[in-house]
Amino acid sequence: MQMGVVVGRVTATKKDENLVGTKLLITQPIGIDGNVLSNPIITVDTVGAGIGERVIFVSGSMAGRAIKNKEAPIDAAIIGIIDSLEGTTLGG
Amino acid sequence: MQMGVVVGRVTATKKDENLVGTKLLITQPIGIDGNVLSNPIITVDTVGAGIGERVIFVSGSMAGRAIKNKEAPIDAAIIGIIDSLEGTTLGG
Amino acid sequence: MQMGVVVGRVTATKKDENLVGTKLLITQPIGIDGNVLSNPIITVDTVGAGIGERVIFVSGSMAGRAIKNKEAPIDAAIIGIIDSLEGTTLGG
Amino acid sequence: MQMGVVVGRVTATKKDENLVGTKLLITQPIGIDGNVLSNPIITVDTVGAGIGERVIFVSGSMAGRAIKNKEAPIDAAIIGIIDSLEGTTLGG
Amino acid sequence: MQMGVVVGRVTATKKDENLVGTKLLITQPIGIDGNVLSNPIITVDTVGAGIGERVIFVSGSMAGRAIKNKEAPIDAAIIGIIDSLEGTTLGG
Repeated sequence: MQMGVVVGRVTATKKDENLVGTKLLITQPIGIDGNVLSNPIITVDTVGAGIGERVIFVSGSMAGRAIKNKEAPIDAAIIGIIDSLEGTTLGG
Repeated sequence: MQMGVVVGRVTATKKDENLVGTKLLITQPIGIDGNVLSNPIITVDTVGAGIGERVIFVSGSMAGRAIKNKEAPIDAAIIGIIDSLEGTTLGG
Repeated sequence: MQMGVVVGRVTATKKDENLVGTKLLITQPIGIDGNVLSNPIITVDTVGAGIGERVIFVSGSMAGRAIKNKEAPIDAAIIGIIDSLEGTTLGG
Repeated sequence: MQMGVVVGRVTATKKDENLVGTKLLITQPIGIDGNVLSNPIITVDTVGAGIGERVIFVSGSMAGRAIKNKEAPIDAAIIGIIDSLEGTTLGG
Repeated sequence: MQMGVVVGRVTATKKDENLVGTKLLITQPIGIDGNVLSNPIITVDTVGAGIGERVIFVSGSMAGRAIKNKEAPIDAAIIGIIDSLEGTTLGG
């Protein structure tokens, strides 16, 4: 999983029928210090996250485990809201 | 999932039989501001997207959920057409 | 999927028994203009591709859908030969 | 799999119900010499690893094999604690 | 799949029970000319490879097809020893 911060939202009227009702948030991967690590991606929110919150997201086919609709074609999902981070990055 | 813009189309007469009838579009990953983020890929269109449109695409095995033919060997599919993007990228 | 050009071939006598009979081609990922995008990989040919041809290849577990042997441990397969590419890259 | 060093821990009260009880450690990918290779990720600990220990972690859907709960949406898990590394990196 | 050269070995006493008995080799991805392409990873050897040998390895969930234990959490496996490479890289 990766750490991220929610930075935006996507709206799409025309979409896969199994995405209807999902909340699509734009999440930017971050490091321990909150520094941006890589490009923003679109994640399905499953825990009620909001803009500005630091979250945990899962990528790839395992994102499918986080939502009830097992036909939904998703490859990234927010699965937790970070309370606290302890540690020191070594770089990267 | 990622944001992208459709920039082209691929034609292949000789191909896997399970790809017959699919529309193969070249999609360039973009950020919130429409800036190019990475290399273009080939995506199967499942929502009627056209050149120049901003789309949502899914990567990896989950792309298989977006098309009816469950034997088709695809690893990327366009699953939505973006109406609007709200947010501010933090970089990347 | 990605666009690529076949640049070489690998021979391996000692290999997984489920790879026996497969043709292993080295494919270099390219962009719309034919420019090299990233490092070469080994792909299983499923469409009769040859050196110098521009191809479509699929990566990850979905490559398994492109070959008949469902026990073969492969993560990349050539699934089409490109007739034509239309479009303009935006960069990357 | 990759080599890593455990550098921190994440706490999340609000999370996917199938993550309850998992220990979420931040792991930084390292090379043979202990040098940092890429950005830190969140891994589920399955072997009792602690801060500062060098570990082996698995990524992607196969991480699911490392934990008992087959509904947990995880894409990285620590599956071993490194006793010793022999070898010489060629670069990277 | 990718080309690689075996550069080392990892020992881990404390590990996932389904990894017991596997040989964990450190493999460095290489190009056609033997040049290093990216960071070293840990691979499960399934063909009797040794230090210094050039190999073919598979990544992701398909690595699971290369070993008999279908519960083992592995994401990379050596599946062939390279006899010869023909071709010319275009870059990367």
